[in-house]
Amino acid sequence: MKRIYLDHIACTPIRSEVVNAMLPYLQNHFGNAQSLHQEGQIAAQAIEEAREKVAALIGAQPAEIYFTASGSEANNLAIKGIALARKDKGKHIVVSAIEHQSVLHSVKFLEKLGFEATQVPVDQYGLVEPEEVKKALRSDTILVSVMMANSEVGTIEPIKEIAAFCQERDIPFHTDAVAACGNIPVDVRELGVSSLSLAAHQFYGPKGAAALYLKKGTRILPLIDGGIQEGGRRAGTEDVAAIVGLGKAAEIAQHELTQWAEQLRPLRDYLLKELPSRIPHVLVTGHPERRLPHHASFCIEFIEGEAMLLNLDLKGFAASSGSACTSRALKASHVLLAMGLDHAIAQGSIVFSLVKGITREDIEELLAVFPPIVDRLRKMSPLYTQFMEGKKS
Amino acid sequence: MKRIYLDHIACTPIRSEVVNAMLPYLQNHFGNAQSLHQEGQIAAQAIEEAREKVAALIGAQPAEIYFTASGSEANNLAIKGIALARKDKGKHIVVSAIEHQSVLHSVKFLEKLGFEATQVPVDQYGLVEPEEVKKALRSDTILVSVMMANSEVGTIEPIKEIAAFCQERDIPFHTDAVAACGNIPVDVRELGVSSLSLAAHQFYGPKGAAALYLKKGTRILPLIDGGIQEGGRRAGTEDVAAIVGLGKAAEIAQHELTQWAEQLRPLRDYLLKELPSRIPHVLVTGHPERRLPHHASFCIEFIEGEAMLLNLDLKGFAASSGSACTSRALKASHVLLAMGLDHAIAQGSIVFSLVKGITREDIEELLAVFPPIVDRLRKMSPLYTQFMEGKKS
Repeated sequence: MKRIYLDHIACTPIRSEVVNAMLPYLQNHFGNAQSLHQEGQIAAQAIEEAREKVAALIGAQPAEIYFTASGSEANNLAIKGIALARKDKGKHIVVSAIEHQSVLHSVKFLEKLGFEATQVPVDQYGLVEPEEVKKALRSDTILVSVMMANSEVGTIEPIKEIAAFCQERDIPFHTDAVAACGNIPVDVRELGVSSLSLAAHQFYGPKGAAALYLKKGTRILPLIDGGIQEGGRRAGTEDVAAIVGLGKAAEIAQHELTQWAEQLRPLRDYLLKELPSRIPHVLVTGHPERRLPHHASFCIEFIEGEAMLLNLDLKGFAASSGSACTSRALKASHVLLAMGLDHAIAQGSIVFSLVKGITREDIEELLAVFPPIVDRLRKMSPLYTQFMEGKKS
Repeated sequence: MKRIYLDHIACTPIRSEVVNAMLPYLQNHFGNAQSLHQEGQIAAQAIEEAREKVAALIGAQPAEIYFTASGSEANNLAIKGIALARKDKGKHIVVSAIEHQSVLHSVKFLEKLGFEATQVPVDQYGLVEPEEVKKALRSDTILVSVMMANSEVGTIEPIKEIAAFCQERDIPFHTDAVAACGNIPVDVRELGVSSLSLAAHQFYGPKGAAALYLKKGTRILPLIDGGIQEGGRRAGTEDVAAIVGLGKAAEIAQHELTQWAEQLRPLRDYLLKELPSRIPHVLVTGHPERRLPHHASFCIEFIEGEAMLLNLDLKGFAASSGSACTSRALKASHVLLAMGLDHAIAQGSIVFSLVKGITREDIEELLAVFPPIVDRLRKMSPLYTQFMEGKKS
């Protein structure tokens, strides 16, 4: 059966050029990048070339790029590393309520060590109001973290505005750009952030390769202590092949991300418009304009997301109900709850996130297949029956 | 020029069967293992199969295996995670003086948080005396860590003996088996350890794939917080291809490690015997019997290790002067210093670690090429000149 993959936010397929760039480092150039001999030098050089490419994608200096194995690791490194390095200056951290779990749980870890945190609310579109962040700042605030774009609802946050007043007060500002980077333009200088995380598997690169941008001069403690890899900031033998893949993916994204967005945005807009017209009781989640170009998300009332996903899967469609990192936890999304949706509606979350090359025909197929699935599932839903009976009476 | 690779301890080449096992997960099966759809299920299943293979290699249950991206990460997770989970029970940690930096620096991190640590000395062969560990234990000791084999001198430690009295006193015992696992038989039940780290690139698997064995019931806090991957103990999108590679490498090692050792041990023994007979003022480092079968290490007096390495490299030989993780730091090894070697001699460290398939001819070539290099370098060494003049007078 033909598969139509609509789960970009979980991860993208890997470009063949990226796999081809990685292969020599799996097959021949197997050296440890820290070794002084030729095998090591070849690996070390490949890593530095990848570092340049990642830096170029986000307007950073190569020396400001630290490779990690996942976006979650990059977020942990930033949140824990910056907070612990600054613990003598204060103990207060400000984050948005819709951050990824790797940020929120890092903050929880720090709270156990005596730090304090304030969660800034979001509006109904998942948008963080910069004034709310400003209001949350205290004299002992040592770190602010607001994500660049939310993977569950696609909303793009006003990072530049928040970074501006953090910079004024000399408070490091981290942004989790895992869902954004490689898909929309990101320039760390223009944004004014202190640190930023990104992951290759969000822009047609491999899993196991991610990076933290850390502005020169920003103090940080390592998350993984040990050897002197990554300037002593991230110990562990470098995964040369994955890093090379990240570099290649970054290079391609730098040149192509605008055209990807141009291809996907109209299809996404069509889906955002059409789906609610073909299915009753559907809510579009996320911001109407400020959203990732490949991202369409909804809450389908009276149904649980998982049931829809499994039925779509059987028909050949791969979608998600939110963050892959918690999808097996089967809990209502903290993002949707923070946006003010009630628990029952939040359970009906579904995200269609498009990967390049998807066609109008694919979207039409989805629009043909999905409404009957919803219809059938609703007929089995006690909540829906109750609702319809209420309407009749 | 033909290259002869003698740096197993930095990393091994990747077996073609391992690369072939990984490729489908780079090319076709790109799903996120946490996704509920078919693409995700395929990835999740591949990971669980790899987990079974890694478990089989070390006699563990699959549910006791947690994947990480490096041996250093596995060590950080064990040391920090177990200590922090037990901080209400005490704050004292015992480690050997020759642990890898990923263990020693993790302990330093904990010391900054208020923990205390005792370093147990080693003898001239790098051997930890179990009684010394016993003596170091306190009523508030919450964790003991002694490596299984040291990568710089090859010495295999008496883990079973140390584990036995830790178990008696109900103190978790971690062993860093990165250099050992996949090269010598490792059975966690027989050893009686609470946790054990291993890395694929030490047994013909890929970089970016390692694991922590954690005995069922051992409490631990995550190092990387976030999603529910790895039972909530290690967040971050799984690097499916690398994990599959680790699984395949573990499967092969389980069946072949004895024959690898049988092939390499005689060549290694020959090198250990011959080199000191062909070069004056050479010291064999590490234990004469209890050592990794692929490992030969020496201190060449009156020369710095780096000069030898670079000269050997030019002649086609890849060797190392110790741990790759610190090789660029150009400091005398803490391992050799702990063994009582003086600083000057420790600077002359060189390690030849053999990979399967190496031949007697390769070793003969090394034995032909190396003495003239040493001779030439010594002629440029003020220390050697001084020594020779002292001998004459």
